[in-house]
Amino acid sequence: MKRREFGTALSGLAGAAALAQRLSAQAAMAGAGIHDMVPAGAPQQIGMLLYPDHTALDLIGPHTVFGALGNADVHLLWKDKGLVKSDAGLAMQPTMTLADCPRDLDLLFVPGGLKGTTAMMSDPQVLTFLRDHGSRAKLVTSVCTGSLVLAAAGLLRGYKATSHWTVLDLLPLMEANPISQRVVEDRNRITGAGVTAGIDFALTVAAKLRGAEYAKMLQLLFEYDPQPPFQAGSPASAGPALTDHLKQRRAEPVRVARAAAEAARRQWPA
Amino acid sequence: MKRREFGTALSGLAGAAALAQRLSAQAAMAGAGIHDMVPAGAPQQIGMLLYPDHTALDLIGPHTVFGALGNADVHLLWKDKGLVKSDAGLAMQPTMTLADCPRDLDLLFVPGGLKGTTAMMSDPQVLTFLRDHGSRAKLVTSVCTGSLVLAAAGLLRGYKATSHWTVLDLLPLMEANPISQRVVEDRNRITGAGVTAGIDFALTVAAKLRGAEYAKMLQLLFEYDPQPPFQAGSPASAGPALTDHLKQRRAEPVRVARAAAEAARRQWPA
Repeated sequence: MKRREFGTALSGLAGAAALAQRLSAQAAMAGAGIHDMVPAGAPQQIGMLLYPDHTALDLIGPHTVFGALGNADVHLLWKDKGLVKSDAGLAMQPTMTLADCPRDLDLLFVPGGLKGTTAMMSDPQVLTFLRDHGSRAKLVTSVCTGSLVLAAAGLLRGYKATSHWTVLDLLPLMEANPISQRVVEDRNRITGAGVTAGIDFALTVAAKLRGAEYAKMLQLLFEYDPQPPFQAGSPASAGPALTDHLKQRRAEPVRVARAAAEAARRQWPA
Repeated sequence: MKRREFGTALSGLAGAAALAQRLSAQAAMAGAGIHDMVPAGAPQQIGMLLYPDHTALDLIGPHTVFGALGNADVHLLWKDKGLVKSDAGLAMQPTMTLADCPRDLDLLFVPGGLKGTTAMMSDPQVLTFLRDHGSRAKLVTSVCTGSLVLAAAGLLRGYKATSHWTVLDLLPLMEANPISQRVVEDRNRITGAGVTAGIDFALTVAAKLRGAEYAKMLQLLFEYDPQPPFQAGSPASAGPALTDHLKQRRAEPVRVARAAAEAARRQWPA
């Protein structure tokens, strides 16, 4: 690739992959310790479920990072290719139907969004799809309440996992072990906590797929040097008053999600 | 609002506003110090530019937060309502055309994405729209290279502003004062640094529009308790080797953006 082409490619995120390859080659020559490479050969297959009433940030944090992995096809999967709206009304287009999804995924991902999540937990087509593809995917992953959908499909039985803090205690209803942690890895399951945890999750995955140096390059590219204006991102830092209010006010949708978890558990194949 | 209705509303992000109102009312009664309210009356008008080849995370971090402000209409603005693709290929639908945008916005927002940004810096229709609406908007804002588009429209002349670290030094070409900081406020201009800074930016804006307690509630709702797996999100933490490589490899698109900045400056109305 000529210098001009390289620079132009870099103006889009896809160029990050080319950059990393060049970085790696140069660093290897210079002995600088950057050894991680984008694998050659067929592109890795990444399938992300795009369902109605998901929380867009759950999806787009990871999508932005995965889109810069290089030599990876990132699919937004739904039943059909009509527009799908997030819980905040953002309409996005799936790139592939569930039926057309490659049989063997390198990574399967489910975002959260409690209202949509609850619907997915009792959607036979979605659960069958996840059970099938999750059985072969190299990594089975989620962010936020997306782990409840994985769990409803039976994909977290006996696995440690996390979720949005308000629903972490629903995981045991589907035989998963809840861990209150930003990102939880257990064998090939990787789950992230609520919404914004998707960025920490995605960089963790990037390091797994491309190595730590590549992940650091993406962190610098996306300038991920978080400086929250407040300290209120966890129940511990937000304090009991705000936490209790939020728990109390989410009582009803969480009750509905609990019922969906119990129903899902009852319907697992024997 | 009855308890059942309230809980159901909360299953979507829009319910956060209702929650805050209730929190505020209850806290005021309890003397707990939560005094911030969602303003009554006509919904606030938030206009977010959705242009080709933007970086989706620049847009969706703030969109997710703004979508939970309550009593605010969040518009995704473009020339027409056809699907617009991000630089990672995500197709999203504008909700309103530039021509239909309310005359008086409470907040005008421009995301980044260097390739698309550079195109916007020389797009007469977009620059005219921004100049016009930016002259009346209560807050004029951006994330990442979006500040270059604001600057090209002349909206940052004499203002302090930030941008993605790789292009911060282009701001003076358009008479803006570059500040290397996560979020920069100068009078009614609020700009965020690269990509993921959009979350810090949006919570800062939320505090301005709804008060600190409301912003903290959103931070807890979105579980924004960042724990990056690496320390490489700024040139200082990533170190000179990675930083120099990234700067060098972005030299060409930055050169093109520099030329666009110079051209935009020359074309300002006298």
